[in-house]
Amino acid sequence: MEFTLAQVAAILQGKIEGNENQKVSRLDKIQEGKSGGISFLANEKYVSYIYETEATAVIVSNDFVPTRPLKTNLIRVEDAYTGFTILLEAYSQLSKTSIQGVEHPSYMDASSQMGGNGYRGAFSYIGKNCKIGTGVKIHPQVYIGDRVVIGDNTIIYPGAIICADSQIGQYCEINPGAVIGADGFGFAPQPDGTYKTIPQLGNVVLEDYVRIGSNTTVDCATLGSTIIRKGAKIDNQVQIAHNVIVGENTVIASQTGVSGSTEIGKNCVIGGKAGIVGHIKIADHTTVGANTGVSKTIKKSGEILFGYIGFDMKDFLKSYSIFKNLDGLENRLKELEKKK
Amino acid sequence: MEFTLAQVAAILQGKIEGNENQKVSRLDKIQEGKSGGISFLANEKYVSYIYETEATAVIVSNDFVPTRPLKTNLIRVEDAYTGFTILLEAYSQLSKTSIQGVEHPSYMDASSQMGGNGYRGAFSYIGKNCKIGTGVKIHPQVYIGDRVVIGDNTIIYPGAIICADSQIGQYCEINPGAVIGADGFGFAPQPDGTYKTIPQLGNVVLEDYVRIGSNTTVDCATLGSTIIRKGAKIDNQVQIAHNVIVGENTVIASQTGVSGSTEIGKNCVIGGKAGIVGHIKIADHTTVGANTGVSKTIKKSGEILFGYIGFDMKDFLKSYSIFKNLDGLENRLKELEKKK
Amino acid sequence: MEFTLAQVAAILQGKIEGNENQKVSRLDKIQEGKSGGISFLANEKYVSYIYETEATAVIVSNDFVPTRPLKTNLIRVEDAYTGFTILLEAYSQLSKTSIQGVEHPSYMDASSQMGGNGYRGAFSYIGKNCKIGTGVKIHPQVYIGDRVVIGDNTIIYPGAIICADSQIGQYCEINPGAVIGADGFGFAPQPDGTYKTIPQLGNVVLEDYVRIGSNTTVDCATLGSTIIRKGAKIDNQVQIAHNVIVGENTVIASQTGVSGSTEIGKNCVIGGKAGIVGHIKIADHTTVGANTGVSKTIKKSGEILFGYIGFDMKDFLKSYSIFKNLDGLENRLKELEKKK
Repeated sequence: MEFTLAQVAAILQGKIEGNENQKVSRLDKIQEGKSGGISFLANEKYVSYIYETEATAVIVSNDFVPTRPLKTNLIRVEDAYTGFTILLEAYSQLSKTSIQGVEHPSYMDASSQMGGNGYRGAFSYIGKNCKIGTGVKIHPQVYIGDRVVIGDNTIIYPGAIICADSQIGQYCEINPGAVIGADGFGFAPQPDGTYKTIPQLGNVVLEDYVRIGSNTTVDCATLGSTIIRKGAKIDNQVQIAHNVIVGENTVIASQTGVSGSTEIGKNCVIGGKAGIVGHIKIADHTTVGANTGVSKTIKKSGEILFGYIGFDMKDFLKSYSIFKNLDGLENRLKELEKKK
Repeated sequence: MEFTLAQVAAILQGKIEGNENQKVSRLDKIQEGKSGGISFLANEKYVSYIYETEATAVIVSNDFVPTRPLKTNLIRVEDAYTGFTILLEAYSQLSKTSIQGVEHPSYMDASSQMGGNGYRGAFSYIGKNCKIGTGVKIHPQVYIGDRVVIGDNTIIYPGAIICADSQIGQYCEINPGAVIGADGFGFAPQPDGTYKTIPQLGNVVLEDYVRIGSNTTVDCATLGSTIIRKGAKIDNQVQIAHNVIVGENTVIASQTGVSGSTEIGKNCVIGGKAGIVGHIKIADHTTVGANTGVSKTIKKSGEILFGYIGFDMKDFLKSYSIFKNLDGLENRLKELEKKK
Repeated sequence: MEFTLAQVAAILQGKIEGNENQKVSRLDKIQEGKSGGISFLANEKYVSYIYETEATAVIVSNDFVPTRPLKTNLIRVEDAYTGFTILLEAYSQLSKTSIQGVEHPSYMDASSQMGGNGYRGAFSYIGKNCKIGTGVKIHPQVYIGDRVVIGDNTIIYPGAIICADSQIGQYCEINPGAVIGADGFGFAPQPDGTYKTIPQLGNVVLEDYVRIGSNTTVDCATLGSTIIRKGAKIDNQVQIAHNVIVGENTVIASQTGVSGSTEIGKNCVIGGKAGIVGHIKIADHTTVGANTGVSKTIKKSGEILFGYIGFDMKDFLKSYSIFKNLDGLENRLKELEKKK
């Protein structure tokens, strides 16, 4: 998106020194500013860059007094850093929500409905009997199966796949390549060593303000629902198995896996590459370290788990520091044995 | 899919009490039943729910005698639980296989053939000289490269990618976002520190009844074939490198990685997040625990491996229980040293 | 692709014995040769196969003297093995670069430009103001966001997603399902336990000769760029978080994760399933073992890291060998205690 400096100044309630018709389309660091970018100067340490930056404009505080000639335009505001963060959010919000209309070819079954102010990108697919709210952005190559419900202002990024019967709340963001609601992994062993597929007939429910990362997979429930509760934030390449429940405002970092039917409480923080076994419960406000395995129910709220088979972090660190010197321990033992 | 209660009763050879024209499109738990859903009552503990459930119909056994008025319709069968599982499978089967025809726009090169009773979803792509059997379901946005062969009744879910020369058997299921037959990871280091790509010219063979999870990747062989044998079931986000062979009826859980040229025997069970190095063999009926690293050939059939660098589970648990108390061990040693 | 034997002989400057009009479309091992395949005989051990192979042709060295009648055609060259590797590379190169033209329907905004000799597959999408070089291959169902720049001769495989503002160099290969430049994972905790999204406004830069594996994710920077430097090779299902820098000629194997703002030096080799925390630096020429966690800056070039929390490999192996016999250690301790 492009804005004139006049438009930027209006957003920031700032004053322009320079050409108000010049356009910016990018936010740059001042030391890396290029034409078409806008930057800010809030830290004395960076003041020398303002005389050299190729950025089209720099946001400065009202009290900034240049000591040399400037090549760039200025936008003066009360506080440059605050001004820049306002611009960051406004820009980010606008760039995500300004896109509208229908690109062709795209596919929507006649039985499905979609509210106003939305976007349907080229090669997006919407199956039968879907109910899609207002302001929903369905990017190119997105797949939406039959009977899916999507709340207002949710964004589905390119190539994401939302399988039949999924229910997605308002203000969700589903990143590229994520797969929501495909079959869970359930097979019954047969006497001859083969496996029979256990039908996976449930769905996935994402409540409002849920964020799903790129190439993350959230499987549908066997019966009932796999649920990601309000405000939960899930990173890239996370695996959420069938019938899992992830609590409100819980954050799960990249490449973590959660096995079937486990319930994670609210406001938990789960590090990257963690592995959580199936059929357990994890209390609210639990912290699970990166790379940690959790193999049993955590009942006490607020615990910090860490280590290969997640146990209390203090215990782990104690043992681990000795582990690193195990040969010292063995040598001391040998010494003792010799003295016998 | 929607069924009238009359249709459901016909499948189950049951008898309706209520309105045979009402429609159901979903299987619900009795305690969560909603309009449009069908449930079952097989356990005395849940009997109270039948008077309150909003499910459109409930499957009950012939001997069920209501003690209060019912809002729901009944379908009486000999055994309610058996009836429900029959319905589960019939429903699952139907919902997967009933879809037919060609949606537009879709792309199939004129040199490729596809049998009857199939489905080609919108935005699906089929390259040159493909041979696709009868009853094959190719969902929207699927990619099928040149010279791919697909056996009868296989289902390729939305957004899955089947690269050139892959051979897929009958009754396979390939879930959304899976990538079958992309280049393996092979590079020859050059004297100047750069890498030269080793051409990856083989293919992938999936035999019959193979199941591949969402966003799983199975790389093509350098020469020859990467092979997933009959009945193997692979979960989401699994990585199968070039020239790997996965044996018949072997099950691999989510986020596991198998490095190049390794051969896994038949009827193995590999837990989630396991890591298996390249160029080894794993005997039939081996069990590999979740999060376990396997770094050497396993010759004996039926072993159970477990732990950071997979060794025999009993050995691991013994050592691990002491590891958790390493500081105890050290303290005892210090005591002994002091007494000297 | 199909070649006549005459064409193959021309590439290899070889001489045909047999029918120069027969066609081959595949490279086979001699013991698995089938009609339509071409193989080679370079090792005496395999000489018996040449009399039985069903391959359409076999490359042999000039001095090969058959001792029995042959069913296959021969192509004689100075050295059969060298001839075959030349053919391997020529075939691989041709099969990747020979495809040209535009398939329909595909989508390219009128403001975007693309050089000659390129390919745009069906259902591919190119947004606004993109600059795409000559000889670029954009396979079916690829997504390219606004303002993306792609250098000459780069190949983007089916279903890969290149988000807005990404800059891709020359001769890159981006495999199916990879996601380049989606939002990084940044959230600011609020007093009420919810999270506020931190705008991710930077981009991704892939320099020349970069290779990205299937379903790998490379997040855009918060501000500035996530950078993968020249010649780096990244395998499948790798996660590269926002503002990471991966150095020249560094190789990263499958399922590894690199957290935000970490800088990896050049010519490093990172094994599969490794986990690297955020905000650290890893020196040039570092080797990180498979499954290894790296939690602190590595300053010395050329180190080899290994183990659950990556420490020096020699130290790890010493401790680990004792760990495997921890119960032996404990028993010796008990013996000593008894003797007291």
